[in-house]
Amino acid sequence: MTDRLSRQLAFLSEADRLKSVLRANPLCDASRRENSGEHSWHIALYALVLSDHAAPEVRIDRVIRMLLLHDLVEIDVGDTPIHGSHDPQATAKAEAEAANRIFGLLPPDQATTLRTLWEEFEAGETPDAIFARAIDRVQPVMQNLASGGGTWRDFAVTSDQLDARVGTKIERGAPQLWAHVRSLTRRYFDAPAR
Amino acid sequence: MTDRLSRQLAFLSEADRLKSVLRANPLCDASRRENSGEHSWHIALYALVLSDHAAPEVRIDRVIRMLLLHDLVEIDVGDTPIHGSHDPQATAKAEAEAANRIFGLLPPDQATTLRTLWEEFEAGETPDAIFARAIDRVQPVMQNLASGGGTWRDFAVTSDQLDARVGTKIERGAPQLWAHVRSLTRRYFDAPAR
Ligand SMILES: [Ca+2]
Repeated sequence: MTDRLSRQLAFLSEADRLKSVLRANPLCDASRRENSGEHSWHIALYALVLSDHAAPEVRIDRVIRMLLLHDLVEIDVGDTPIHGSHDPQATAKAEAEAANRIFGLLPPDQATTLRTLWEEFEAGETPDAIFARAIDRVQPVMQNLASGGGTWRDFAVTSDQLDARVGTKIERGAPQLWAHVRSLTRRYFDAPAR
Repeated sequence: MTDRLSRQLAFLSEADRLKSVLRANPLCDASRRENSGEHSWHIALYALVLSDHAAPEVRIDRVIRMLLLHDLVEIDVGDTPIHGSHDPQATAKAEAEAANRIFGLLPPDQATTLRTLWEEFEAGETPDAIFARAIDRVQPVMQNLASGGGTWRDFAVTSDQLDARVGTKIERGAPQLWAHVRSLTRRYFDAPAR
């Protein structure tokens, strides 16, 4: 039991480093960039509160578990901004290696369970993963709206690019949510004063 | 549906402010103090990983939900350091008012559900709340150990004070966990080089 517990605590201390990984998007008040630890908390709360926008077969508690661990690989790889340019294959390879190392700190049974859940999120094919990915995408949209543009300004993103890169993924998991949020983003992008 | 969703999103944007509430304890690498948003993520992950130390009747997914929202009142009230001095009655009153305001942003049915869950955590009487409170207490102990003393140095805490203020609560929800962690804290407090 002591070895098992030591491994669990080693994993949890390693996870602490996610709080030092910076994302591209700001906090709502634009005071600083968001880190991936607090982002993971926020989207878990999003999933809990927005559960009535999920398909009926979605199990919210599984979605929350997925969201709690979905970004841990960023401890080794860093965040990959949606609106930046990167090589998807190289990123996927580096993230798989990071998952080996980080989940490998756990006792073997838990390493397998949590890694499998992370792979389900990454594959984005099950109803739970599709909803989780929609939630992961909608939160930075709300942060950008609240902060007056955020990464859309930084990367000179257009409304059509946002629809293509982000909207399609939110719509897939939570169509009513995207319909509402898109009315907000359209208003932002249409504003003459920007 | 639109009004319901607007209220949900207003609550979630307000929750963002928890990322700007600073706690007394540091990150593991001592680079800065932890904020209550990232703390809430970390302890939800603690609950998931340490679930085999919970009593058999504990429902981990309810514990995780509780931990995700347990600190939201700090948006109005701030964090109350365990090792600092404060008036428990005044704190409880201020937190109840904060809960009225913050959960009150949600649609009424969700406001009631989440507030009831928060009250269960605060009361600390059900098996889920007892385990959740143990987890909430053990994480800062691990942060202090990793960072070389943290709040124990800042508040000149002794090993016996730690046992009384924190250990009893961890032991109540997760006795094996506390037995192990106490062996680590004893080693820290006994070290001559401190
Ligand atoms: Ca993410």
